[in-house]
Amino acid sequence: MIAEILSTGEEVRSGAVIDTNAAYIAQCLEARGIEVARHLCVGDDVEKISDSLRMIAPGADFAVVTGGLGPTGDDLTADAAARAFGVNLRLDSKAMENVTEFFSRRNRKMSPSNEKQAWLPEGAEMLYNPTGTAPGFMLRFQRCCFFFLPGVPSEMVRMMHDAVLPRIARLRKDDRQVFAVRTLCVFGLPEPVIGERLAVPEKEFQGVRLGLRSVFPEVQVKLYGRAQDRAELEKNLDEAADRVCSIIGDYVFSGNGSSMETVVGNLLRAQNATLSVSESCTGGLISHLLTQVAGSSDYFLFSGVTYSNAAKIKVLGVSRETLDRFGAVSEQTAMEMAQGARRISGAVYAVSTTGIAGPDGGGPEKPVGTVCIGFAGPEEVVAWRYCLDFADRSRNKQVFAMKALDQLRRSLLNTRKRPID
Amino acid sequence: MIAEILSTGEEVRSGAVIDTNAAYIAQCLEARGIEVARHLCVGDDVEKISDSLRMIAPGADFAVVTGGLGPTGDDLTADAAARAFGVNLRLDSKAMENVTEFFSRRNRKMSPSNEKQAWLPEGAEMLYNPTGTAPGFMLRFQRCCFFFLPGVPSEMVRMMHDAVLPRIARLRKDDRQVFAVRTLCVFGLPEPVIGERLAVPEKEFQGVRLGLRSVFPEVQVKLYGRAQDRAELEKNLDEAADRVCSIIGDYVFSGNGSSMETVVGNLLRAQNATLSVSESCTGGLISHLLTQVAGSSDYFLFSGVTYSNAAKIKVLGVSRETLDRFGAVSEQTAMEMAQGARRISGAVYAVSTTGIAGPDGGGPEKPVGTVCIGFAGPEEVVAWRYCLDFADRSRNKQVFAMKALDQLRRSLLNTRKRPID
Repeated sequence: MIAEILSTGEEVRSGAVIDTNAAYIAQCLEARGIEVARHLCVGDDVEKISDSLRMIAPGADFAVVTGGLGPTGDDLTADAAARAFGVNLRLDSKAMENVTEFFSRRNRKMSPSNEKQAWLPEGAEMLYNPTGTAPGFMLRFQRCCFFFLPGVPSEMVRMMHDAVLPRIARLRKDDRQVFAVRTLCVFGLPEPVIGERLAVPEKEFQGVRLGLRSVFPEVQVKLYGRAQDRAELEKNLDEAADRVCSIIGDYVFSGNGSSMETVVGNLLRAQNATLSVSESCTGGLISHLLTQVAGSSDYFLFSGVTYSNAAKIKVLGVSRETLDRFGAVSEQTAMEMAQGARRISGAVYAVSTTGIAGPDGGGPEKPVGTVCIGFAGPEEVVAWRYCLDFADRSRNKQVFAMKALDQLRRSLLNTRKRPID
Repeated sequence: MIAEILSTGEEVRSGAVIDTNAAYIAQCLEARGIEVARHLCVGDDVEKISDSLRMIAPGADFAVVTGGLGPTGDDLTADAAARAFGVNLRLDSKAMENVTEFFSRRNRKMSPSNEKQAWLPEGAEMLYNPTGTAPGFMLRFQRCCFFFLPGVPSEMVRMMHDAVLPRIARLRKDDRQVFAVRTLCVFGLPEPVIGERLAVPEKEFQGVRLGLRSVFPEVQVKLYGRAQDRAELEKNLDEAADRVCSIIGDYVFSGNGSSMETVVGNLLRAQNATLSVSESCTGGLISHLLTQVAGSSDYFLFSGVTYSNAAKIKVLGVSRETLDRFGAVSEQTAMEMAQGARRISGAVYAVSTTGIAGPDGGGPEKPVGTVCIGFAGPEEVVAWRYCLDFADRSRNKQVFAMKALDQLRRSLLNTRKRPID
């Protein structure tokens, strides 16, 4: 089953608005095993819309078209559909009810221009719009079943679920397959390396297709599963996930698409432990990430963003001697920062960063990209040094923060294997 | 002049990633008076990409193609271009330099698969990629000049400005008009309100077209200027910008597209002043934003992310009585947090946040979305309370952080008008 998506409207064509509808619709269809072959986007132009519809019709089983169903002169999609499929527009009584109901339910007066929205191409089936004035419609031409929806994202989403997906399910009732996607998240290996390692014969992954997606600074391995029933699907996905983990190892930090901060939060919660942070080069990003997770106040206590040396000394108790002797960017300072954050907050664990995000501040011994990460727990205080330069201050901060959280994750996994206290 | 845009890649085709590149490219081209007729998006499929290129060639003057230039087997765009235009791939020495340079500058080992990125279609001109491994290329076929760029947004943006737009300007040198876009950034008014206020007759903005773009949590007013020469262009843009500012008032925080954190940083630098922060509900986001600006260590000293009450008391010196009597989310606590951050760091100014980002923790008196913002300077300590609920923890954090920075901006603008110390 092949689908295409057509977005219409001057605001998406000109780039004033990012077309989020196409991605939403594609995800809905792909999750149900319908391959989206292409997206198209054109402006409010009756010729271009009708050309696009004619181009789509011979090659697709389904098409979802958004936009151009409003009451104004710019809204030309029904016109374009009638022209493309060689039919006339006619006033659809159900569509008229949809439009008048919208106004009467809100005690608002219907503008005469709204009547236009009830004129649909001959042969179209009206699709009810519960939240707006623009009814949609379904129309078959050649092999393709077209669904026309409004461009307002909230109306489109509601109608995809209420009107489009149930009709698609009925139209393909002979197709008995089930589908699911699983996401494994990887940090610390570049995408090409992951690609090379996973370049094993496709048949080794029974009923599962692999896809890589780079979401800086992580890489996601997507498992697209397809099977005859739910149990077989889950079994295939489990086996594929195990196989990927055995190849990629502990660079895989999540088997269900969870963020690094969620994984770390879950590890802390499982240990009933608390965490504090001290950040220099990451400038607050680690604590921002940790506190993106709802309920993080259960384990996250404090972060000291100590950009100046004075703050490192005064707030975290880093010794002036350490700063003078080893410098602010050093394993020794990172360890004292972590110890300081742990001590003043009473947290079980603390993690720290000090480094050079750039573009300035680098030198021959400590180039831009240098980061020292400290970890302090009840049993040990350690630090690591890395050089991770991604040629951009913001990307460097992201990598430093992710690396610190990943070292924390690895430390928490280790401590889990032995008793604490 | 007509342009088309082609986005390639499984992640955009399948909707796993929203295609922000197409909108960005469309805006760049439209701003220069080039009409974007259509966007297309297909997956990593050599047939579909080459079909699309052949479909675009006869009708467009320019086309920008993104994605598929990486080192893996999925990256097929150069192949597809060679096939579409009937040429072979050849190893391009300049492109090879671009790839090797990327690795040598970072002291990283080049993977053998990266060599693939230097194989370009015959007749192509390499486009230098300063921030990634994937060189782009330009290739003319029929009437259309194609620009192939990587799909990573940051690399694409850089190359649009460094490589594509200057070449387009040279190619249309007979076209004597000049173009520019200016961006005014607004915070604190919803987009429809800004739209209504700016709905004045188009002719009042001489040679300038207005566009609104919502970039949560701010709204950008774009001024698209077109004139016969540079001086007239600048004059028209200046007048239009003044007109917009007189209508929108001090909700406009930037007249040149600068971020709020850059604007605040410039105000601090102009006063030779320093800043510290104490954050509860924003969880480090304010300091993360402030430290996104290169050179922010000149004025940013410290942030205490005090999620727990214990940390508020111990690190910032908030009194237990204040917390007991007024609660952690109160103007009183916000003021003591700001005073504490200022005191322990020795900063001239401090700003603080304490509130409820949700989804839990709200109550009838202090619902989710409540935020108290404190400000402490040499002359005053104040606090404000707002209720700003955007139905999502992450969006609420963003709005709280932006509101705090905006209050800081307004306070700094006020202090500038009178002598300090």
